[in-house]
Amino acid sequence: MRVLICLALSLTCCCISVAQSKKIITNTYENQHMKQDGIIYSSKDFADRKTVDWSVSKQTLHGGMQDGVELIHVDNGKLKFSVIATRGMSVYKVDCGDITLGWNSPVKQIVHPKFIDLNDHGGLGWLAGFNEMMVRCGVAFAGHPGEDDGKMLTLHGRIGNIPASNVSVVVDDQPPYRIRVRGKVEEKMFKFGLFELWTEVSTVPGSNAIQFTDRLVNKSEYEKEYQIIYHANYGRPILEKGATFSAPVKKISPLDDYAAKDISTYQTYLGPTKNYGEQVYCLEMNADKDGMTTVMLNNAAGKNGVAMKYNTKSLPYFALWKNTDTETDGYVTGLEPATGYPFNRSVERSAGRVPKLKPGGEVTFHVEISVLENAQAVAAVKKQIERIQGDKKPEVSTTPPRPK
Amino acid sequence: MRVLICLALSLTCCCISVAQSKKIITNTYENQHMKQDGIIYSSKDFADRKTVDWSVSKQTLHGGMQDGVELIHVDNGKLKFSVIATRGMSVYKVDCGDITLGWNSPVKQIVHPKFIDLNDHGGLGWLAGFNEMMVRCGVAFAGHPGEDDGKMLTLHGRIGNIPASNVSVVVDDQPPYRIRVRGKVEEKMFKFGLFELWTEVSTVPGSNAIQFTDRLVNKSEYEKEYQIIYHANYGRPILEKGATFSAPVKKISPLDDYAAKDISTYQTYLGPTKNYGEQVYCLEMNADKDGMTTVMLNNAAGKNGVAMKYNTKSLPYFALWKNTDTETDGYVTGLEPATGYPFNRSVERSAGRVPKLKPGGEVTFHVEISVLENAQAVAAVKKQIERIQGDKKPEVSTTPPRPK
Amino acid sequence: MRVLICLALSLTCCCISVAQSKKIITNTYENQHMKQDGIIYSSKDFADRKTVDWSVSKQTLHGGMQDGVELIHVDNGKLKFSVIATRGMSVYKVDCGDITLGWNSPVKQIVHPKFIDLNDHGGLGWLAGFNEMMVRCGVAFAGHPGEDDGKMLTLHGRIGNIPASNVSVVVDDQPPYRIRVRGKVEEKMFKFGLFELWTEVSTVPGSNAIQFTDRLVNKSEYEKEYQIIYHANYGRPILEKGATFSAPVKKISPLDDYAAKDISTYQTYLGPTKNYGEQVYCLEMNADKDGMTTVMLNNAAGKNGVAMKYNTKSLPYFALWKNTDTETDGYVTGLEPATGYPFNRSVERSAGRVPKLKPGGEVTFHVEISVLENAQAVAAVKKQIERIQGDKKPEVSTTPPRPK
Repeated sequence: MRVLICLALSLTCCCISVAQSKKIITNTYENQHMKQDGIIYSSKDFADRKTVDWSVSKQTLHGGMQDGVELIHVDNGKLKFSVIATRGMSVYKVDCGDITLGWNSPVKQIVHPKFIDLNDHGGLGWLAGFNEMMVRCGVAFAGHPGEDDGKMLTLHGRIGNIPASNVSVVVDDQPPYRIRVRGKVEEKMFKFGLFELWTEVSTVPGSNAIQFTDRLVNKSEYEKEYQIIYHANYGRPILEKGATFSAPVKKISPLDDYAAKDISTYQTYLGPTKNYGEQVYCLEMNADKDGMTTVMLNNAAGKNGVAMKYNTKSLPYFALWKNTDTETDGYVTGLEPATGYPFNRSVERSAGRVPKLKPGGEVTFHVEISVLENAQAVAAVKKQIERIQGDKKPEVSTTPPRPK
Repeated sequence: MRVLICLALSLTCCCISVAQSKKIITNTYENQHMKQDGIIYSSKDFADRKTVDWSVSKQTLHGGMQDGVELIHVDNGKLKFSVIATRGMSVYKVDCGDITLGWNSPVKQIVHPKFIDLNDHGGLGWLAGFNEMMVRCGVAFAGHPGEDDGKMLTLHGRIGNIPASNVSVVVDDQPPYRIRVRGKVEEKMFKFGLFELWTEVSTVPGSNAIQFTDRLVNKSEYEKEYQIIYHANYGRPILEKGATFSAPVKKISPLDDYAAKDISTYQTYLGPTKNYGEQVYCLEMNADKDGMTTVMLNNAAGKNGVAMKYNTKSLPYFALWKNTDTETDGYVTGLEPATGYPFNRSVERSAGRVPKLKPGGEVTFHVEISVLENAQAVAAVKKQIERIQGDKKPEVSTTPPRPK
Repeated sequence: MRVLICLALSLTCCCISVAQSKKIITNTYENQHMKQDGIIYSSKDFADRKTVDWSVSKQTLHGGMQDGVELIHVDNGKLKFSVIATRGMSVYKVDCGDITLGWNSPVKQIVHPKFIDLNDHGGLGWLAGFNEMMVRCGVAFAGHPGEDDGKMLTLHGRIGNIPASNVSVVVDDQPPYRIRVRGKVEEKMFKFGLFELWTEVSTVPGSNAIQFTDRLVNKSEYEKEYQIIYHANYGRPILEKGATFSAPVKKISPLDDYAAKDISTYQTYLGPTKNYGEQVYCLEMNADKDGMTTVMLNNAAGKNGVAMKYNTKSLPYFALWKNTDTETDGYVTGLEPATGYPFNRSVERSAGRVPKLKPGGEVTFHVEISVLENAQAVAAVKKQIERIQGDKKPEVSTTPPRPK
């Protein structure tokens, strides 16, 4: 099923001018919305280009709690992943041959936000829809639920449960012909925050990586606090007994006393462990001269893994969420570059970890996630991490990084 | 309008193997969803079978707060009823000639869950959609709103406002050719409950009864508390001044002091009574050797009524909700087999009335509701109840069954 | 695209009998719903009538937080406005040549109620959808969020976020051939309020005015409190530095101390002013012998404006909401005839400002809004206001009108 609307535009984007082809899926301001499911673009539309076969397609889910959810499926010829336009442009899963990035959440449906009540169950309603490989938490607030300034802040904020108001698919007309899925997610409340998150999830045909390049804009004429967590979640086959986390750590501390007791072994993982619950570690990373850093999770044998490269300038903190609980209840670990730690915003503020955006100000976040398919790839990233670390020693604290 | 998808399968169901015909309305995991409204099955599809004329059809509601609600209408040739797939597989009303099971709720629309906020108005939001003949309350919690373990539990839980994720219609290929409407309702929240309620509402062509056979599964590897109330609600023509409730009562106590003062007349009903509000009685029933018991509501003249037969092993408690308030505000009584009483879960737990499901465990609930069309039918059920009661005397307490 | 369903009916409406043409957009009780967008009626359907060209059309919005919102667009030949059927029959904006009634809210999407959680952020969720020219607040409660009788009342109540269950377009068959958009909005909760608000937004072809004629019915057999605020909001081009509010004021007081300090200049407006926030004044108006009164907002030069004429018998109070904050965050003023002031209902009750409807009782609200296109029109309304005021002096209080 081919889509009939076809706009080929030359766009100026950021600082570089790249000719691009573009199709609009949704544009609420123009009341534009592509109804048909099916192929949006594929390599067949660009037959003269020497790339692998790839495609981008749209699917609408029907029935149950999924009813009306729109997915943008990307198959770059090597990786397959799905962007959930209706759930804040989260990414559901990434498949690369036998390796999957993502996890087997006990929440099986891709739940439409209309069925989510973030305020439910003491502000934990977010957990009723949580099953993505990557969900952004934020942006007026993220982290633990609780009162701040007389208002209940719900777990991990609203942005992951807001449908994107503008969605488009863009293909660069220059090599490497990057494929970009874009969506604007608006988190706006008169007098209480006017945020626009311009998300982009992109990939190069045939590559093993996807990139998140998100621009957060404060549309208010007032300076505003914001928080964002890139909540990236991995289960099997990478996570397993003996799997290892590596990073160029500058500082590490436990989120609570329960995490403190196992801080000496925080880098390795248990198999599914009943009553484990979760242990969370709070980290700061060393970075290269551009502020970029790299972290990695690899399986026990070091034969597969995932690398995350991100910008510590906009994402100076990192949480390692170890949730190696039972298989069925959710065996998963989160590698989470963020603006702060997952305490409630009131705690984060008093710790000086809540950044602000000036009136009309903006900040860009970069996160690149690569699938590591073999021992060489894992070893290469290991080297990269060691290069960033150099001979700097991690500063270890056994006290949670929160004010008394 | 005939549906084109037609799957005839042989299924093994429970312990017995019965050849069945089956059509899938919704299967979220396969993103399968029957869009068209109209007949799903009817006796014409099985012309060789000697049954009354019957049909099962699908209708989607449009506009207002009903927009998007899906109903499965069953006409078994004698009874007509509607299963609300979008509202937890509740049953709206049962019509049998001049007799209706159900009530005239002041809430007229069949409200889509997307317009219900269970946490509204002190956790009473459930009441904005309450108009069914049968709505299940539960399953992580049911009963009165209030805090339990630091979390707000909303009135009667979530299950009645969750759209079924898998819906199918099944027709037995063996006499008596039972018609089964099945739906799986998932109440899942990462770390806070992984319940699947596999519901079945069924009826035999030409019969005067519908059966609820529901299987609740704990998908967690942890033992979990659960609660369920079969909130069956009846108004006119059965409920009227002088209508009578009968049951083989083992124990009875009032829910509160207001109910206590009228406990001696709890079996009979007033006509619509302004400022009556509601009186609730808490009962345990005697049962036959299989644990089955029967209760009945009949009209003043004993010429029509409704019988409910249910399994006291999985539903050991029963609430009689007498809400003979004004006609307009809702003249109704609830006959409610349940796992406990309608106090908040915190109260029920301390009274030892909150059952648990083992990891992966399940429990099945059976409730059969029959329309009694004449004095003979009423008298026959009366006898049945007396047989179960035998010479056992009800134990009457005037104190609410809650710990101090 | 012409709509095929065409019902021409003679209806008896209220006390007067007027032949009318009518088309039904939505009737939930009959599961009737007009799916197609496009022209519903236009002057072409009544070619024999000597009116300007006019039309009424329906549009469904798609994508983002607008998905599924239904608008009824009215172009009376002079004025254009949109009734938001899905958001309680609010009116989005009124355009009349260069003059717009309405405001430039930072909330840009017309948000579907399924994406609004009124209980969010301390009961302020209403603000995530606030961008209308006219939104009714109410009806069980309106005003500030907060607990009343143990229940959380959310800001400005529910009625503005309930989809109308019955929507129709009616055209009078007698001059002046008034066009009427009608919608019934049901705010019902078993045991906690059974309100039906029968709204009508109407206009005469070629005229500069729209009329709100709403009938609120208490369907309960119990007397019930109600509250309503006609929250009419204006920004540019009428609101600007030096714009003026005029009214035949009987009494005025500030909502709080911050408003008290500027009460002497409450009638004039500042330009966009950072950190201004909002100042609110509480007024009672003088009225003519029928209880009708008129208030006006006009621009600095007195060359354009808006007049509001309303019935003080059913709307005895009035709030002037001055929100001349920054352009981007929302530069707006609200002229708000109401049953009380915008304090929480608990405060209003103790001040004796919460009216009640008897069992089955009803009350009708009239508000007419006219665009003033030139200095003469402004001057004429000014005269009208002075005539009502006569030589009565406003009674000024510098104390907020709330009990200690």
